[in-house]
Amino acid sequence: MSKLLIVGTVAFDAIETPFGKTDKILGGAATYIGLSSSQFNIDNAIVSVVGDDFPDEHLSLLTKKGINIEGIEIVKGGKTFFWSGKYHNDLNSRDTLETQLNVLADFNPVVPKDYLDADIVMLGNLHPLVQLSVLEQIKKPKLTVLDTMNFWMDNALDDLLKVIAKVDVITINDEEARQLTGEHSLLKSARKIAKMGPKYVVIKKGEHGALLFHKDQIFFAPALPLEEVFDPTGAGDTFAGGFTGYLTQNQDISFENMKNAVIYGSNLASFCVEKFGTERMENLSKDEIDSRLQEFKSLTQFDIELRPTKAL
Amino acid sequence: MSKLLIVGTVAFDAIETPFGKTDKILGGAATYIGLSSSQFNIDNAIVSVVGDDFPDEHLSLLTKKGINIEGIEIVKGGKTFFWSGKYHNDLNSRDTLETQLNVLADFNPVVPKDYLDADIVMLGNLHPLVQLSVLEQIKKPKLTVLDTMNFWMDNALDDLLKVIAKVDVITINDEEARQLTGEHSLLKSARKIAKMGPKYVVIKKGEHGALLFHKDQIFFAPALPLEEVFDPTGAGDTFAGGFTGYLTQNQDISFENMKNAVIYGSNLASFCVEKFGTERMENLSKDEIDSRLQEFKSLTQFDIELRPTKAL
Repeated sequence: MSKLLIVGTVAFDAIETPFGKTDKILGGAATYIGLSSSQFNIDNAIVSVVGDDFPDEHLSLLTKKGINIEGIEIVKGGKTFFWSGKYHNDLNSRDTLETQLNVLADFNPVVPKDYLDADIVMLGNLHPLVQLSVLEQIKKPKLTVLDTMNFWMDNALDDLLKVIAKVDVITINDEEARQLTGEHSLLKSARKIAKMGPKYVVIKKGEHGALLFHKDQIFFAPALPLEEVFDPTGAGDTFAGGFTGYLTQNQDISFENMKNAVIYGSNLASFCVEKFGTERMENLSKDEIDSRLQEFKSLTQFDIELRPTKAL
Repeated sequence: MSKLLIVGTVAFDAIETPFGKTDKILGGAATYIGLSSSQFNIDNAIVSVVGDDFPDEHLSLLTKKGINIEGIEIVKGGKTFFWSGKYHNDLNSRDTLETQLNVLADFNPVVPKDYLDADIVMLGNLHPLVQLSVLEQIKKPKLTVLDTMNFWMDNALDDLLKVIAKVDVITINDEEARQLTGEHSLLKSARKIAKMGPKYVVIKKGEHGALLFHKDQIFFAPALPLEEVFDPTGAGDTFAGGFTGYLTQNQDISFENMKNAVIYGSNLASFCVEKFGTERMENLSKDEIDSRLQEFKSLTQFDIELRPTKAL
């Protein structure tokens, strides 16, 4: 089977939405990417770091999903990265209440030997220098994908630009794309980002879907209209996991197939937001994904002749 | 040819966007709906009212586009409806600077005899009692479509609910749908609106596209990603004109064909916003629309087998 290498946080989150509030629960970019990509027939591994306060049950959940966790370093006496946030009423924006870097502050990632030849590498949200260090360790993969956040634009822009220059695909949300480029139009923004390096630019618009840009081509996948979004945490990472998981499985990195990967990313993300944290992703079947794929098809596919039919 | 009857404002607009400012220019819901629907092989007519301050050149523009204007009453000594507004920097919201109802205040619409048997009736934004009066005059059309605004929810809700109960399709923007139903989820919101009467609910999300709801079916058309949106004025009405113009032309009001109508509505609206006011719609060719239809196809159409291809 093809191999997907995932780098990113494995963490504790405490989340508050209009629908409720959680204590410290399992979170982190690599966690969501791992759970999401595990829906595909691939070998996937996470490179990350936690403290010895991190419960075995969380690690064994990842293992049970078939994820290789050799690359998750457990720091003795260390504390796991912790984030807490509160979503506003429309769930489109949130305030960070607390961030404790803890063991992340001195993280030196080590890629497991079996994954040095990974087919696809997904660099989830982390310090750009950690992402760079992973790129330096691996052999040449078929595709490298980067996700990042405004936090690094504010605090480590030079390092971030270095890693952006080295990857094939970047996934970034709309506001971050605007911040990075100073362009309001997402079309102009994507063009500017492509000039920084990535051949493919994915702009995530949350409940408004995702855009894939490549040269002069554009593809758009909507988010599925849902009765209720309970918790958007991890939706972007789940999208990235679906996107890279699908590409890793079928090893076709053409633009046509990348469209499909964007649909799978949106498909998986539409489940993630239905419950708090990772709950929905822990209990998700392939049949549910297939059935939702049909919903995405009826939502978006149409059949128009180029010239409208004649008047009756 | 099939007939489309349009009711709505024919007006003066003064518009300010981050890109510039206009004096009093041609505007109004029925104007945009008329220009947009004129792109199809149909007979269309506008029912509206203006003052004798309304320039002949505006009326002859409508006539030149093939629009029947018998139903546009010209009130001697009256002043034409005037609206002025200023868009915020993101162009997603605007402040109304001034509204002068003028001749609209006492408007009693009279449907031209030749359009009493219109195939489709498009009730553009106007007082709901005016919209109701038009419905009472006409014979049973194949389809009635209503557009409205939050202004009438605030000021004439009972009358608005009466007209909503009588139409087949409603087009409404996302914030207005939320205001009308008290539901944040657009899916829940559409269901509540459908219970008020319309079998089809179209929710317009501006730059984020449009959703069509019918029973348990949903279809989504994105807005085309543009380099720059110069002026969103009239985009919703242009959408409605494309939607009803297409349906009138091919007389197929199935859900499948209504999907196509939503695509044509989005197609035409994507031109409207490229220049100030009606300018782009006055000079738009069928070839440009056909070519943009191809863009909509490549933007949204994909080809996934139900089961992802096997791992290599």
